Amino acid sequence: MSTEARRHRVAGALATDALLVSTLFNVRYLTGFTGSNAAVLLERDGGGVLFTDGRYRDQAAAECPDLEVVVRRDLPAAVAERVTGRSVAVETHTMSVDAHARWRDLHVGPTEPAGRPVERARETKDDAEIAALRRACAISVEALAGLLDGPLVGRSEREVARDLENRMLDLGAEAVGFDTICAAGENSAIPHHAPTARRLGTGDLLKIDFGARVDGYHADITRTMVLGPAADWQREVHGAVRQAQALGVAALVEGAEVAAVDAAVRADLASSGQLEHFTTGLGHGVGLQIHEDPFFAATHPGRLTDRTVLTMEPGVYLAGRGGVRIEDTVCVTPGAPEVLTPAPTELLEIG
Amino acid sequence: MSTEARRHRVAGALATDALLVSTLFNVRYLTGFTGSNAAVLLERDGGGVLFTDGRYRDQAAAECPDLEVVVRRDLPAAVAERVTGRSVAVETHTMSVDAHARWRDLHVGPTEPAGRPVERARETKDDAEIAALRRACAISVEALAGLLDGPLVGRSEREVARDLENRMLDLGAEAVGFDTICAAGENSAIPHHAPTARRLGTGDLLKIDFGARVDGYHADITRTMVLGPAADWQREVHGAVRQAQALGVAALVEGAEVAAVDAAVRADLASSGQLEHFTTGLGHGVGLQIHEDPFFAATHPGRLTDRTVLTMEPGVYLAGRGGVRIEDTVCVTPGAPEVLTPAPTELLEIG
Repeated sequence: MSTEARRHRVAGALATDALLVSTLFNVRYLTGFTGSNAAVLLERDGGGVLFTDGRYRDQAAAECPDLEVVVRRDLPAAVAERVTGRSVAVETHTMSVDAHARWRDLHVGPTEPAGRPVERARETKDDAEIAALRRACAISVEALAGLLDGPLVGRSEREVARDLENRMLDLGAEAVGFDTICAAGENSAIPHHAPTARRLGTGDLLKIDFGARVDGYHADITRTMVLGPAADWQREVHGAVRQAQALGVAALVEGAEVAAVDAAVRADLASSGQLEHFTTGLGHGVGLQIHEDPFFAATHPGRLTDRTVLTMEPGVYLAGRGGVRIEDTVCVTPGAPEVLTPAPTELLEIG
Repeated sequence: MSTEARRHRVAGALATDALLVSTLFNVRYLTGFTGSNAAVLLERDGGGVLFTDGRYRDQAAAECPDLEVVVRRDLPAAVAERVTGRSVAVETHTMSVDAHARWRDLHVGPTEPAGRPVERARETKDDAEIAALRRACAISVEALAGLLDGPLVGRSEREVARDLENRMLDLGAEAVGFDTICAAGENSAIPHHAPTARRLGTGDLLKIDFGARVDGYHADITRTMVLGPAADWQREVHGAVRQAQALGVAALVEGAEVAAVDAAVRADLASSGQLEHFTTGLGHGVGLQIHEDPFFAATHPGRLTDRTVLTMEPGVYLAGRGGVRIEDTVCVTPGAPEVLTPAPTELLEIG
């Protein structure tokens, strides 16, 4: 889908004369612009204007050849001049209170909260987005396979994380999508652990959460291995998580209730006696942002739609001992879910 | 200065019973907490409570041993319960309109805009902060020197950027502070250029803008070289920028008017006939954020204070031909400014 088609899709649902899009990820989605300061004014007829500052004059012209570009340091003032007297919806979920107050001072006309119309559109990925997500995920899976070919015992968490990141870049990732989590032994019990100088030792659980970025789109995958032969408790915890995760992945089909999927995975972890140690979220949308709508929650009112890409990532965290998380990035389809990160999930005993 | 001392310093200026700090960089500054979801409630007497979610239970306890930590998924609700009936200042410059509306629904008591009290405190760096900034800058300077020792012609912008980033990590950076800008030939005219597959060729200007991160603190440095012998126009532009930048750095003394420094550098570029090609900002504060207060502007009302760390980065950008930027990270002192990034600024002709 072209960015023009995306703009028409969002504009078609507007209840105001125009929508001011000030969230950068939404700007990128609607225009292709990748700079760090911009806003888009989207007209109800699908027309759009991109506003940015002098640093990005040439980049905006190159990335958005089909759009009028206004270059000005004071973006809100430039936007306000263009919509005098007309009703404008603004992104109140991201716009700061102070920015909103200034906008109301500048704008002669009604201002409405927009809701999250661009985030809603972004939940359903088009072909180009799915292609980028597939590439990012394929690079991530291949990088992990390469890492696990080599010896790991004796290296530090930080060294292993950097090795994996370099492999993703060598394989063509434009960037590392987020700070790699590489957590060994007792550190694996910390859900979001930053890699340290701790060295990997035989008997440690090793949890690695990472992903490549391609054309702005993110992969997100976690695997948990053991260094050397697994202890019984490690097998037990890993088995419980693996079973729950497989059940959760299989449930990611078009029309499924988000809250029901959440409940089913939790029920499975409860049946294994591990639910109390599952202290994180079950998953989230992935795309231009590493965490985006939809987010799993027991209270989520919606159903999954075709072409939604999201993670499934139950985990069990035993403070002071270790933790296991297994995470895939998955694309919802009318049929069987497409697992974009098909690395083995069984408990690997590696060196 | 301990985080406790920082909290007392900010709390001492409060006009309300408490301050709700929801900006993550400000939370880190006041508590040491480095996770991705938290808020801190600062009481007028300097007492504080950290609120975070279950993912960060252990990390919060480890990073903030001197603080009460409340773990809950719904942070605003947890905060509101603690301050029922009391007046609370909130960070309206970063809090979203929707979050603010929810907060007002939850909080039984007066809510005031806080202004930017934590950002104001952060403008003046304490000893620990300056030490981290010095290390980040020293690593960056050393990495650049190593890069320039090797051959560059024939390598791509992307390869050169990655080489530089790996050198920073090898030298002890905890991370790369921001996406490295490596721009050759006509690309150097793009102020914020993302590295491409374009190969460096003899005769190209080469602009590199980069920096290491240490303990959360950023270095920011730009140098512009030429590959092979410099053409006259390259010498002319580089000479104009170098002269303006040196003048600007020398002006970064305690008590200087920010707007006057801005005007002086612009006047110098005008005298060289280059002002019309200077389309970016002159500089910005550097610390926990790569861009933070103060920002240079013709309208800035303030004066520089001792221990403010900021960049000085004039540039000249000639679309389609090339551009030159020279940037240092500088610490304001009562005497001569301390240049934290003392790499050579003369026009290097490299291979």
